[in-house]
Amino acid sequence: MAAKVKAIGIGLMGVGVIGTGVADVLLRKVDKLAKEAGISLVLKKVLEKDTTKYGMLGIDPEIFTANFTDIISDDEIDIVIELVGGEHPAFEFISEALDSGKHVVTANKEVLAKHGCELLALARKKRVGLRYEASVGGGIPLISPFLNDLIANDIKAIHAIVNGTTNYILTRMSQDNLDFLVALKQAQDLGYAEANPANDVEGLDAAYKLAILATIAFGSDIRLDNIYYEGISRLKACDFRYAKELGYAIKLLAIAKQNGNAIEARVHPVLISEDALLAKVDGVYNAIEVEGDLVGKVIFYGQGAGSSPTSSAVVADVINLAQSISRGVECIPKLPFGCNKTVKHMSDIETRYYVRMNIVDQAGVLAQISKVLGDNAISIASVIQKESDPSTQSAEVVIMTHNAKERAVQKALKETEQLPVVNEISNFIRVEG
Amino acid sequence: MAAKVKAIGIGLMGVGVIGTGVADVLLRKVDKLAKEAGISLVLKKVLEKDTTKYGMLGIDPEIFTANFTDIISDDEIDIVIELVGGEHPAFEFISEALDSGKHVVTANKEVLAKHGCELLALARKKRVGLRYEASVGGGIPLISPFLNDLIANDIKAIHAIVNGTTNYILTRMSQDNLDFLVALKQAQDLGYAEANPANDVEGLDAAYKLAILATIAFGSDIRLDNIYYEGISRLKACDFRYAKELGYAIKLLAIAKQNGNAIEARVHPVLISEDALLAKVDGVYNAIEVEGDLVGKVIFYGQGAGSSPTSSAVVADVINLAQSISRGVECIPKLPFGCNKTVKHMSDIETRYYVRMNIVDQAGVLAQISKVLGDNAISIASVIQKESDPSTQSAEVVIMTHNAKERAVQKALKETEQLPVVNEISNFIRVEG
Repeated sequence: MAAKVKAIGIGLMGVGVIGTGVADVLLRKVDKLAKEAGISLVLKKVLEKDTTKYGMLGIDPEIFTANFTDIISDDEIDIVIELVGGEHPAFEFISEALDSGKHVVTANKEVLAKHGCELLALARKKRVGLRYEASVGGGIPLISPFLNDLIANDIKAIHAIVNGTTNYILTRMSQDNLDFLVALKQAQDLGYAEANPANDVEGLDAAYKLAILATIAFGSDIRLDNIYYEGISRLKACDFRYAKELGYAIKLLAIAKQNGNAIEARVHPVLISEDALLAKVDGVYNAIEVEGDLVGKVIFYGQGAGSSPTSSAVVADVINLAQSISRGVECIPKLPFGCNKTVKHMSDIETRYYVRMNIVDQAGVLAQISKVLGDNAISIASVIQKESDPSTQSAEVVIMTHNAKERAVQKALKETEQLPVVNEISNFIRVEG
Repeated sequence: MAAKVKAIGIGLMGVGVIGTGVADVLLRKVDKLAKEAGISLVLKKVLEKDTTKYGMLGIDPEIFTANFTDIISDDEIDIVIELVGGEHPAFEFISEALDSGKHVVTANKEVLAKHGCELLALARKKRVGLRYEASVGGGIPLISPFLNDLIANDIKAIHAIVNGTTNYILTRMSQDNLDFLVALKQAQDLGYAEANPANDVEGLDAAYKLAILATIAFGSDIRLDNIYYEGISRLKACDFRYAKELGYAIKLLAIAKQNGNAIEARVHPVLISEDALLAKVDGVYNAIEVEGDLVGKVIFYGQGAGSSPTSSAVVADVINLAQSISRGVECIPKLPFGCNKTVKHMSDIETRYYVRMNIVDQAGVLAQISKVLGDNAISIASVIQKESDPSTQSAEVVIMTHNAKERAVQKALKETEQLPVVNEISNFIRVEG
């Protein structure tokens, strides 16, 4: 049997944390893959500028190169794995590899979120594969289920926890009654957050991933530019306490919904019912809920990052491509993304809101606030007065609204803050579900 | 574009609840499928003995037939969908369809659990596809993720809630403090349990599904005969109360684990930590946790039954086959299942145990019980005395053991029940995780 198996040449670009994990799996599992998947993968070249890394992991030092063109000009390389990360030069690496007729596997969420459709079109033109299962949710199967298993469905909505760093921080804030900076410090000490955590905590990382998922789910080119995102840094420990009293958890969700020909695509903290399974996803775990017209709600849960889980997805993509190549079967990207649905402006969404404000503790204040809200067509579902402070004659109140337009809420909050009886709009959080 | 699309002929066997759902989706989504999946599916024949159903759902009455051979002899039928259910004649239908060179899609867990490997071998021999995503977990993607997305992993374990009926009953018993028969009646009234609920509540349905999953996960022919299963009918409301006090939930789990060359495959109620996400899966929902060496633990969650979710999986299988057929690509089953791992006898498993017993309420009783357990190499982790009844001088105790062999526990429980100071071994439940 083994003699019949055609060797598939692999070029690996980037041997950081993920790249070394992938190289390790490829080398360690070569026999298993030959036996179970019927393919023989041969690591032909590894791109790395830092020559001190040459020969690492027991990889033959001879196959390291600092020159990208050594990989794309190597006729024995069928599949290029891009794990350099970041937008440039990764985008150019992927483009040129596809252009040279190589199949590409990448975990690069930023390049996919910014240039995905263009790269998929190039892959189709060159009749090669472009796989990116690892770009969202680490090893959790998502891209492939969307493209294959859920293909009979019209996707109605995605609600996803796709950033483990922020979910860890929110879990600590909620469970240990911590403020943001304290929880962030803990996450950094444990290696769950980077020294510069901005991409994670400001929601950008989740927005990249939402762009990728929404593009597939809705068959339309949803780019990062179309996605509203905000992070978790303005949440306070008291917001979690109040949310809990009201029966909610607070999560950073990536949300995409279809309303006719318009799509909502946004990332921000939300109050969700504590009974929802997503509310129970704690720590660094990811969970992606997909709602289809046939399947209803399905959830995919697991570790969304880390060398080993990400390798699981990268190597699976490599194996699936290699099986097609071995059998002489074309493996060009399936979807044309021809739906061209447009993304609603954030001001046009409609949802419920949690508003926490500090007011002067005297009679008639709520009437004034209600009037401003009412003038903006916002009706109040409930009001809870919290923590009066007699020394400053101030009080904290939490207002839950009925469904209202984002634009109206933003305007009303500005007007409310102008009222002499309102000291501060302390926070507002959208409610989902 | 549309003119280029080759029509794929479909033969549908069985128009019960699932079959009518599938027919409805095929007819309703024909334009979407042509546009997004690039295929044209044409329902050519429908097998149904009951002539009063002919013409239902707006299906042309002319294409109904009571004769199976009309379908397998129709050269215009490429894919046969088997939704007759049960072992016979569904097994013969599938076999003959494959033998005639038709691709087959089925949701039939019983046939797959009993004859899966034989049918897959036949499909390989005939070089046609055999898909069965809907046989486990309704519309939740499982088979395809195992075969494709998780292929780089060595699967270590599966812990799965794959029977919605029993999960609903257990949820009611736990949340409403109900005994089994009361909760079963509620489930029947709501249509979640059948009039004859034996297959579900005795664990057989879950065992079918475990056979299918374990066969794929471990690349070995795991048949129903190899799987130990027991149901939920001997659980009492008090078991849920005591479990909760100890920090556990009770779930009916389908468990498969790899230990070297031996596999454990079993279905029974278990105590699992209430912190585990599986413990939080309530109602009729299914959740399948898969642990791989690379990916860690991933969970797939959703509705495991029902016409619409099941149609999602059946139609996806049809579309994926149709795409391959249209492109002239072979779609024979991927895995040879050549691992030949054996399933451990249930007596040889080792786990922790919860034992509830009724004892004579007097000094020294626990010492006698401990001695019997100790003589069988079973050590006690904790003992909790519950509900003494002064009128009968009896008391209920719950014993949690450390890890012990099933064989030893069964023997020890028999011996314990012989002690004059023990009125009854009321229940024992294995602990998982």
